[in-house]
Amino acid sequence: MGKVICTGLGPGDPDLMSVRSDRLIRGARHLAYFRKEGRKGQARQIVEGMLREDVTEHAMEYPVTTEISFKDPEYKRILSEFYDAWTDRLEALAATDDVIVLCEGDPFFYGSFMHLHSRLQGRVEVEIVPGITGMSGCWTATDMPITWGDDVLTVAMATLPEEELVRRLKDTDAAVVMKIGRNLPKLKRALEAAGRIDDAWLVERGTMPKQTVQKLTAFDGDTPYFAICLLHGQGRRP
Amino acid sequence: MGKVICTGLGPGDPDLMSVRSDRLIRGARHLAYFRKEGRKGQARQIVEGMLREDVTEHAMEYPVTTEISFKDPEYKRILSEFYDAWTDRLEALAATDDVIVLCEGDPFFYGSFMHLHSRLQGRVEVEIVPGITGMSGCWTATDMPITWGDDVLTVAMATLPEEELVRRLKDTDAAVVMKIGRNLPKLKRALEAAGRIDDAWLVERGTMPKQTVQKLTAFDGDTPYFAICLLHGQGRRP
Repeated sequence: MGKVICTGLGPGDPDLMSVRSDRLIRGARHLAYFRKEGRKGQARQIVEGMLREDVTEHAMEYPVTTEISFKDPEYKRILSEFYDAWTDRLEALAATDDVIVLCEGDPFFYGSFMHLHSRLQGRVEVEIVPGITGMSGCWTATDMPITWGDDVLTVAMATLPEEELVRRLKDTDAAVVMKIGRNLPKLKRALEAAGRIDDAWLVERGTMPKQTVQKLTAFDGDTPYFAICLLHGQGRRP
Repeated sequence: MGKVICTGLGPGDPDLMSVRSDRLIRGARHLAYFRKEGRKGQARQIVEGMLREDVTEHAMEYPVTTEISFKDPEYKRILSEFYDAWTDRLEALAATDDVIVLCEGDPFFYGSFMHLHSRLQGRVEVEIVPGITGMSGCWTATDMPITWGDDVLTVAMATLPEEELVRRLKDTDAAVVMKIGRNLPKLKRALEAAGRIDDAWLVERGTMPKQTVQKLTAFDGDTPYFAICLLHGQGRRP
């Protein structure tokens, strides 16, 4: 009997994955990862050059990404069937071998593997290897600590309603905002209303090639790519 | 000219430090770490068995820990002098060699090295290697994801005033509370008042030997040790 082992890949630089993830990936006979149809996939890209010659790869291609709203019941049904089907396949593979599943960042922190994790419970042994979060790679890239002393840190998605973003950005010392993409104009308005836009940093592709680090006010694109917005805490510092 | 390189150690299991931290620590000629006077120190413990025979160790022993309140100006003065003195020493060492500084968890996330980092600016080249946070090791230990979909995560210290803890615990999907120690009774009251005590988990020594994972209501000690309290988010899950 094998196991399903989900390995956190960290923020993107392969040198920043854990010693354990590195060893498991290099030894993998079965390797599974999520990706958008027709793409190589970010997770797969990170492990390029690390795999055994005889590895069998299992690309778990999302049946939908942003074509349907996540509020549509059809979105929920399609994704649910997709996760169910891969749960069956991973369980079948694990009957004879370990299966290594790649996960960017830290698997239990907004990761897609969680949807397989919950379905695999009671069917096969599952192990999670934590990883350095993408946000940690990003605040390290700014060369400034994100939190000091008793700072409160709020992590929120830019998909939240504007008024909720304003309220939360006003009421925290440090903040991390993810899932920005097309929500950038809303996020900018929320930061402005919270009086914090001048302190906001935007990091794209943190720790990866073509990383960019800049004040959000200096960003002149429409849709940042693999981006996180940061407000650094200013707490106690002897 | 050498550099000062602060390496995140991750949550405690040496297998969970990054490949880069592992390599830097194994190669270190000069190794510095914080500890309480008379103790081996948690950071030093994690790297036991990994060091070169000819390494020179520099234990940076805190002049005070909890004997004086951090609100006392004397506390601030003593710690400030301590950080100033070690800034001078690290700068002097880095004139000829790289100096590796150990930091539990992730250096820029509530880490002590930040106080040296700010002082070293403009004096010597400093590099930060991020690490898996202690909280990430702890939520992985609970075998439950901390955040899903659009969940808001709040990270707060148990040192905050009780009414602020209540307010923040009420107004978040997921929460991580650190620096518990003697603040446990206050934290319990705050969780109770926020209506969330039954969902709270307490993880002690996450990913380390003697790790314990239990509902907070099942904990019968006075002062948990290396402990983090977690409230898991319950967000969107197709």
